[in-house]
Order: sequence, then structure tokens, then C-alpha cells
Amino acid sequence: MVDAKRVLGNLKELRALTGDEFGAQRLAWSPVWLKARDWFEEKLKALPVEYHFDAAGNRWATLQGKSGKALVVGSHLDSVPNGGWLDGCLGVLAGLEVLTDFAERYDGKPPVTVKLVDWADEEGARFGRSLFGSAAFAGKHTIEADRGRTDKDGVTLEAALAACGVDVERVGEASAEQKNLAAYLELHIEQGPILERLAKPLGVVLGSKGVERWAITFHGQEAHSGSTPMEVRHDALAAAAKLALEIRPIARKHPQAVATMGSVKTFPGIVTAVVGRCEATLDMRDLDAGVLAGMLAEARAASERFAKEEGCTVEWSKIWSIEPIPFHPEMIALCEQAIVETVDSAERLPSGPLHDAAEVARLGIPTVMMFVQSLNGLSHNRAEDTKAEHLEQAVVAFAALADRAAKWIAG
Amino acid sequence: MVDAKRVLGNLKELRALTGDEFGAQRLAWSPVWLKARDWFEEKLKALPVEYHFDAAGNRWATLQGKSGKALVVGSHLDSVPNGGWLDGCLGVLAGLEVLTDFAERYDGKPPVTVKLVDWADEEGARFGRSLFGSAAFAGKHTIEADRGRTDKDGVTLEAALAACGVDVERVGEASAEQKNLAAYLELHIEQGPILERLAKPLGVVLGSKGVERWAITFHGQEAHSGSTPMEVRHDALAAAAKLALEIRPIARKHPQAVATMGSVKTFPGIVTAVVGRCEATLDMRDLDAGVLAGMLAEARAASERFAKEEGCTVEWSKIWSIEPIPFHPEMIALCEQAIVETVDSAERLPSGPLHDAAEVARLGIPTVMMFVQSLNGLSHNRAEDTKAEHLEQAVVAFAALADRAAKWIAG
Repeated sequence: MVDAKRVLGNLKELRALTGDEFGAQRLAWSPVWLKARDWFEEKLKALPVEYHFDAAGNRWATLQGKSGKALVVGSHLDSVPNGGWLDGCLGVLAGLEVLTDFAERYDGKPPVTVKLVDWADEEGARFGRSLFGSAAFAGKHTIEADRGRTDKDGVTLEAALAACGVDVERVGEASAEQKNLAAYLELHIEQGPILERLAKPLGVVLGSKGVERWAITFHGQEAHSGSTPMEVRHDALAAAAKLALEIRPIARKHPQAVATMGSVKTFPGIVTAVVGRCEATLDMRDLDAGVLAGMLAEARAASERFAKEEGCTVEWSKIWSIEPIPFHPEMIALCEQAIVETVDSAERLPSGPLHDAAEVARLGIPTVMMFVQSLNGLSHNRAEDTKAEHLEQAVVAFAALADRAAKWIAG
Repeated sequence: MVDAKRVLGNLKELRALTGDEFGAQRLAWSPVWLKARDWFEEKLKALPVEYHFDAAGNRWATLQGKSGKALVVGSHLDSVPNGGWLDGCLGVLAGLEVLTDFAERYDGKPPVTVKLVDWADEEGARFGRSLFGSAAFAGKHTIEADRGRTDKDGVTLEAALAACGVDVERVGEASAEQKNLAAYLELHIEQGPILERLAKPLGVVLGSKGVERWAITFHGQEAHSGSTPMEVRHDALAAAAKLALEIRPIARKHPQAVATMGSVKTFPGIVTAVVGRCEATLDMRDLDAGVLAGMLAEARAASERFAKEEGCTVEWSKIWSIEPIPFHPEMIALCEQAIVETVDSAERLPSGPLHDAAEVARLGIPTVMMFVQSLNGLSHNRAEDTKAEHLEQAVVAFAALADRAAKWIAG
């Protein structure tokens, strides 16, 4: 039987060890992160499991079962700087409890193999490369582009990894861990307000939204704010302002779509000059690839219309994109059953944020995530929190899901 | 008889001496500016005039007349970095020609005294304090607030002035120069597109627009761009974008009003976060104080409405303001006559940019400015230009205006 209070105790122990007054400080490839991983290793030592790091720095702990086919549970111990106490480590420590439970219930030899993974550098907070470890595992690493990335102090990713015993030349070898994996489960805080607004403790995640992330630059004509009549201006900010407002009705046509202009920069950016150049960013997400492509096309057409109206031109430059990654229908069903069994009712929702589960699901490994309610939708800062009652329900439901998934694999 | 071609020759000489491939470099209180002033002193030596610097660094050259009542012509030799070749120095060198003309026509003793002034640091480009010299002359200096201003290299205004022989403790003494001044005339390039669009070489300036300059901050709620549904956002950028668009119809209700949002800053300003705080600047100008106050009130009310619509709050903080400064009706009439006499037709227009003439007019000294057409409305960069034909017409018309103003003073 899982001990949900033990998971809470472990979460608090980790917070005390690796957090400070500003929040969690488990920045990947940092001494505090290594301290968290050492602490975690002590927990593993108490279990009848083999554990090791793969070539990308992901930690795998394996409870060998009667079948080699493996159920994997996991998440990440790393955090953003001044991060929340639950983001990532909840999934790892709930996974530890699942592993412990399987070891206890089956006297160290469950019907299927059960693995726990602590992915390396999910957040990408130091080098701007999210899902580092899980992407390497999935054979989607981009090490040629990433090796020279530097942190704010000028340290290269390559050097930071070397200091943690990871050789950038070999990260691709992490794909060896794919062998025999039959299903992947991840418990995570929602990091959004949906479950709280619906007063539901737990949700089953339908998949990871696709993301289109673009840099948009409007070019107008810098001009003196005092001597340039309104009707002759080529105001790049006006075109960008129109787009900032237009992306909202574009997203609102679709129930779960989002569109965000997160950054606007004005040039020359002084009080006495009409904006000659305006650089903006756009982030659009939806679980449906067709919807997402349609939103992007609409935004693009709108930007061209606004540029024309304002006597400007507009350029789009892709920052990054990822297709929507739906989770596995049978895993979704099992997750929903486990939640309903624990708290009576489950909400189905997509994940806006990306998670390591998306990289696993891309491989075709049956995958699902479970979300537990976040208070006030906050994450990535020290105010991030979840009711203790909900955390305990999450651990119980996640263990029930693992049990169902193990049976599904065995059957 | 004025020699307009000599003025053009002088302008080109000064450009060769104090400009480079990036434009004019006569930044106030810099070695290049002092070089320009030394060059100008050589020109004064050839005339029967007394000259000196006042306590604020303004240069005065005086052609003593039969009456002590003085007509003053002038402008500024300083430029912004990488500035245009005409901004400021056109007025000083046209003034030099007027002084020469009066000296020649009246054998060194005109009916009224004629003075030429080269104001110190009109642009404020190095320390952010425009109209430095003319404000000191007008008794409106703000030296207590300004003495500690620093340039981008950390040099204080106080030290830069000392290096040019100006003691900050004494700048207020420049007001002694007000004595006996009976009228002030300034020729300047328009720095805007109005005359060119109307195909008029010259315009009479009705006054200097009032300016309201404000910092506006919208406070919303930073949130994850992937996990925060559209309908629960408090997007500070959306509120600012609405205001950026709304200030335009507010200004367009009035034929000569302008309103500009020149700077927008987003916080945290990253592609993956809804904007939690947006800082914008607003610059509004009109020649009518009532119109300007009405525009400001409308913009403020609109910002509060938009903040409310977006679940945000808004704060306004004044950066700077100046009331509209109308020029003298009789001087305006004389200027119009001089222009019509020279080029058949005059346009009446307000000045959006501030000029030293505004400080003089504030004292109640009868003042007017004449504008000459700018090509493409450009100024403050090396592309600033005016047709040679128009420059020559400007010098002729300005001399005609000086003649009329001298007669007006004498009469």
C-alpha cells in the first residue's frame, strides 16, 4: 500500500535541503541539483533496485520483474531558479513511492519490470534547452546546436555537463534506454488554473499541445514625435498593438487554444520618437495540429493586413515549434479510471506546458500524464503550491494508475 | 544686401570641420563643439561687434545701435551625435549674415542694437537637459536638479561645464542678458514634413506646442503562456496595446495635435509568459492648452477603462510637461510679410519640437520663428537636408524679417 504521507515528507525534506527563502534552487547542472540527486540516491539504496545514469545524465532505477517489459514512472528533480517546491520532484518522489510499493507487494519481483526515471534538465533554465535528457533518450537531441550554448556567466553547456560527468559527444547513447519500455506514466502539478476553477483535484492529460513560437518584426519609420503629423506616420508599434489584440479572438475560437504576445521591444524606444521598429514574440498552442496551423495562418495574415494599414512591413522568423503530441488512448482510459476510483471524478485536459512525457510519447511508447490541481494556477515561483489533501490523493491515484498499467502490460 | 550663398558656404565649411561620415558631431560641451565655437569666433572677429559668453555658456555678439533696445537673432551650434548639418547652425549662420548686413548697411551703427546669440546646449543630447542655455537666460534653470546629471561615461554635467569654463554655481547670472531685449527671431529647419507636403519653402511659426510627457505602467498578472486559459488572463500588454491605438483618434480630433507612444517595455518579457507588467511612455502635444489638457484627460480615462477591461491596474507618472507658448502676434505678422515678399506664400504652423525661442517667448519678449522646409521630414540624423534654393530663400526672408522687426522696435 502506498504511503502518501511519506511522499509529502520526502518533498518537504528535499525542499529544506535544496530550497531557500526565494524558492527551489535545483537548477540543472548546478551543485544544488547534484545535492538533490545525491539525496535521492540515498533513497534508492534502501530499495532492491539497480540504478545508473545514462549517457545524457538521466537517472534510471530498475526493479526487475518477471517480464522484461517495463513500466516507467518518472519526472525531473531539476527546477527553475527561485522555483516551486513541487514542479518535477512531485513526479519523481511519487514514482519512488510506486517503486517501493511494487517492491513490497511483490517481494521484490513484480510481474513486469518497473523503472523510475529522473530526467536531466527538463527546465532548460540555465542554457535555454528544455527537455534535454528526455530528448536525448528519444533520439531527438540537438547537441551540435546546443553544445556551445552558454549560461549567463559564459559557461558553455558542454563544460557544465562535463563537470557533472556527462560527455556531450555521447548523449545520443541515452537512446539505449528505450529498450523494452512498454508504458510511461508521469504525475505533475497542473501549473495552471483549470482544475482549481472546476474544483477537481485531479485530471487526466490528453496530450501535450503543439507550440508555434515566432519572432515578429514590424518595420515602420522612426520620426520626431513633435513634428510628425499623425496622418503621415509609419508607426511600427501601432501595427504590433493591433496584432497583440487580434491574436486573442483568433485563439478564443477554439476552446483550449492559447495565444500569447509575451515580449514587445520598441526602437529607438524613446519618449520623443515614433516607433520605427517593433519586435514582438508570439506563442500559440493547441492540441489539434489543424487548429494550430489555422491559428498561425490567421495571425500571419492579420499581421500583414495591420502592417499595410500602418504603412509598415512585417517579417516572421520561427523561434521554435513542436507538433501536438496526443497521449495513448488506453493509457488515458486507465488514468481516468484510477482518478475516478480515488476522487470520484476526473477532468480531461491538455497540457499547455511541455513535459518529458511528450518526448517519450513521440516514440510511440504508450504514455499518459496525471495532473494534480495547482493553487492559483501559479508555478515557476515560490508561491507554487497544492493542498496537502490533493497531493495525497494524487499519490494514491498515481499508484492505482501504475498498478493498472502494469496489469495492462502483463496482459 | 544679405549674401545667402555666403551662408551656405559657411554651413558647408562648418560641416567639413565638425561632421564626419555619420553626420554632425557638435555635441554640447565636447571638443568638437568647442571647435565649432572657435571657428565661429573667427567669423565674429571680422565684424564691428563686441562678443562674450554669459554665465551659462551662451555666446552673445552685439552690434551697438543708436538705441540700446535690442533685436536678437540666434539659434544653436550644438547638435545631437550623428546629427544633421542644418539643425541649429542654420539659424546661427543666418543670424551672422543678418548682423553683417546691419553692420554694412548702417556703417556699423544701426538704428537699434542688433545681437546674435549662440545658445549653449539646446539639444540636451549628452545630459538629457534640453534648452540648457536659453533656460538659464530665462531664469528657468534647474541647476540644483541638473548638476549631478551624468553622461554615458559617468562624467557629471558640473564637470563637463567646468571643462568649458562654465561654473554651475553661476549659470543663473545669464539672466542679466535679458536687459533691453526688444524682440527675438529664430530661423530653423522644420524637422517635419508639413511644408514639403504643402510645397511651401517657408512657414511662420505660431508658437511652440505644449507637451505632456508621461510614464504609464499597467500591472496585470504574469502567467504561463501554455497553461493559462485566455479567459483568466490579466494581460498588461493587451491594456497597453489598446491605449497605443486609442491615443490616435484622441489626437486626430484636433488638426495639429500629436500623440505618441514611443516606448513599450514588457515584463518578464519572455516568449513563454503572459505580460505581467507593461511600461509605456506617452507624449502629447498641441498649441492650445485646453486641447492638450482635454487630450490628456481622455487618454487617462481610456487607460483606466482598458485596465479594468483587462483585469489590470494602471499608474501614471509625469515625466515632464510644458505649457503651449504662443509667439507674438505682431512678430508673426512681420514674419508672414517677410516670407510672402520673398516666396509669395507663407504657411502658418506650430512647432512640435521645442526650441530656444520658447524660453525667450516665455519671458514676454516679442518672439517669432521662421521654418524652412525639411526634405522627407527628417532631422537628427545625417539624412537631414533642405534644398539649396530653399535655404537661400530662407536667408533672404529672415533678413527681411530682421529688417522689419528692427523698424518695429525703432518705431
